[in-house]
Amino acid sequence: MSPTAPPPAAEPTSLSEVPDATGAVLEHFFDATLPVAGDIAPVVGRAADIVADFVRFGGKRVRPMFAYAGWLAAMSSPHRRPPHPEQSVTDALRVCAALELVQACALIHDDIIDHSDTRRGRPTVHRRFETAHRDAGWSGDGARHGVAAAILAGDLALAWADDLFGGHSPAGPDTGAPAPNPLPATVSAIWAAMRTEVLGGQYLDIVNEVSGDETVESAYRVMEFKTAAYTVARPLELGARMAGGPAELLDDLRSVGHDLGIAFQLRDDLLGMFGDPDRTGKPSGDDLAEGKRTALLALGLKRAQQRDPRSAIALRDAVGRRLDDNELNRIRELLVDVGAVDEIERRIIDLLDAAVTRLEHAEIGTDIRADLIAMAGRIAHREA
Amino acid sequence: MSPTAPPPAAEPTSLSEVPDATGAVLEHFFDATLPVAGDIAPVVGRAADIVADFVRFGGKRVRPMFAYAGWLAAMSSPHRRPPHPEQSVTDALRVCAALELVQACALIHDDIIDHSDTRRGRPTVHRRFETAHRDAGWSGDGARHGVAAAILAGDLALAWADDLFGGHSPAGPDTGAPAPNPLPATVSAIWAAMRTEVLGGQYLDIVNEVSGDETVESAYRVMEFKTAAYTVARPLELGARMAGGPAELLDDLRSVGHDLGIAFQLRDDLLGMFGDPDRTGKPSGDDLAEGKRTALLALGLKRAQQRDPRSAIALRDAVGRRLDDNELNRIRELLVDVGAVDEIERRIIDLLDAAVTRLEHAEIGTDIRADLIAMAGRIAHREA
Repeated sequence: MSPTAPPPAAEPTSLSEVPDATGAVLEHFFDATLPVAGDIAPVVGRAADIVADFVRFGGKRVRPMFAYAGWLAAMSSPHRRPPHPEQSVTDALRVCAALELVQACALIHDDIIDHSDTRRGRPTVHRRFETAHRDAGWSGDGARHGVAAAILAGDLALAWADDLFGGHSPAGPDTGAPAPNPLPATVSAIWAAMRTEVLGGQYLDIVNEVSGDETVESAYRVMEFKTAAYTVARPLELGARMAGGPAELLDDLRSVGHDLGIAFQLRDDLLGMFGDPDRTGKPSGDDLAEGKRTALLALGLKRAQQRDPRSAIALRDAVGRRLDDNELNRIRELLVDVGAVDEIERRIIDLLDAAVTRLEHAEIGTDIRADLIAMAGRIAHREA
Repeated sequence: MSPTAPPPAAEPTSLSEVPDATGAVLEHFFDATLPVAGDIAPVVGRAADIVADFVRFGGKRVRPMFAYAGWLAAMSSPHRRPPHPEQSVTDALRVCAALELVQACALIHDDIIDHSDTRRGRPTVHRRFETAHRDAGWSGDGARHGVAAAILAGDLALAWADDLFGGHSPAGPDTGAPAPNPLPATVSAIWAAMRTEVLGGQYLDIVNEVSGDETVESAYRVMEFKTAAYTVARPLELGARMAGGPAELLDDLRSVGHDLGIAFQLRDDLLGMFGDPDRTGKPSGDDLAEGKRTALLALGLKRAQQRDPRSAIALRDAVGRRLDDNELNRIRELLVDVGAVDEIERRIIDLLDAAVTRLEHAEIGTDIRADLIAMAGRIAHREA
């Protein structure tokens, strides 16, 4: 059985089937790949299991859904021109699954950088390795070991992402199954650009934190690369290019991807401050404590400065430290009072509106159009 | 100009020309790729420059030399069977360069894990980002920022490694130049295995540190994956498979790669304890201070335990802490006195001997045979 051959999954015809289909490809990859890690040493196998486990509980599969949406949209286009070499739905799902492995690396490393203890309501990977260190009764600093192990775990996820994308596996080629179709150069180039963009966006994010850049423009620049391109626009484009979508459709999807991606991140900012931790899986106010320069904070500061410089001082003073519940509530009220929350909510609606209008005019099938519009609404108005 | 098209470099006919040819491919890739980072934001461009700069001062190019040695050996084999699709020397050099980007990620992340301040006589990447933080007058903990930035920098190097390996670039496909030849599935599988192996070996290394595993067997197991496979055997195999080397030659090269790889690491262990810091570029005794479970240490402990348990206690006590010059000298004397240094030196000679014997009997051209044997001797007896 080839590590990258088609898993026995049904071909998704709607976006709601994509998470399960992606999960099946990932399990197929893990079935072939985890034994390679275990053969190095049992303890390495257990570390690889932690990575696989993290990917399995991988949340909403947003990026695979957008990639597959791009695929379905382009497949339904009357102007589609199949790429060379032609791609199958199996190839498309493989790229969907590979996106989840890139995301695993991004989250594992982000959680180290942000010193986060929980993710999706579970311990972060560096905390899991710290616990393994304690449970095994090992010597030395457990927290330091946890970080070291999680750096390597994230690297493993990133290496596996490229293995899956390229259609190969550490388990070797001699499986007798047919090799996957090579990817068109246009698809590989988008994949390459996406990885450099998300890493660049993450770096810009941590620079904005320490440089104290308060401008709304800088917050948007981070969103553009760290979220909009990486989470929506590039996945849509990957799927569409694999199916041979025409240039006008690619333009449509880039525009839709940008708008929905920014809306996705703006909602994330609001959830980070006002969300229910039981639903989001992470403590409320974490972004603020971490000193994250979100658009919500930038806009809050800008508006506070214009209306009441004392409240701007109070807000600035809250950045980068842990607040108790009373303090956090005062900051929440302040963001509401200066109108920053309303403005972000309105901005989300405008972005959603622009995306939906563009989708309504795109030359794609009615099913995928309706599916994408519904997903756009969920993305913009989610509560977790 | 395509980001992955052949640079205008001569085709290396001996291994001594490989470092320059590899460097030319890397510069070509950077010329196309660095502007993509700079377009995200100037500060991202400067971070990407730090990564490129680290790769440029990349030391001895050992892995490219072995990969190209595998290529030349297989090309000279009378039993060569060209793979499908056939590969060019340009493809081979691209893979050589990609190996250096994997290595950049490994070193950047290793230096974070080991809290190392210098590498090749220059500040490590996390220290460079810490300095950039200070020079810019940014707020917050500079050391923490340096680590965060270096985690992302290593990720970028790893992503770029796969871009170069796959023959694509974040700069995009629309350059008009012909796409590189797709890689045979056998080559991609070796690349995949190599990355999981080195990460598994690195993880095993940090587990041995904290679990206090003193056995010589464990030290060898780390060497096998972290060094022998990754540094010599897999690069040789990659090159040989790209050229279509026959099964017997692949067996020869795996055996040679294993022996030379272990010899390489044993020499590294000795240099880490007895080397001249001005030549090695890192402080002597660093492995010991870091608690690294080297074969030298494991063997020293084993022999000390057998001869004089008090010296074993002294040696054990020196692991994992900074020693002054007097203490370090006493440990050096102890390792010599119990015969551990002699045994390692003898082991290196035996391994070198086995590798040379195997090379003498391999069915390869006389030039590459002589070149490989000479390189084997330099690897085993280097002073830096």
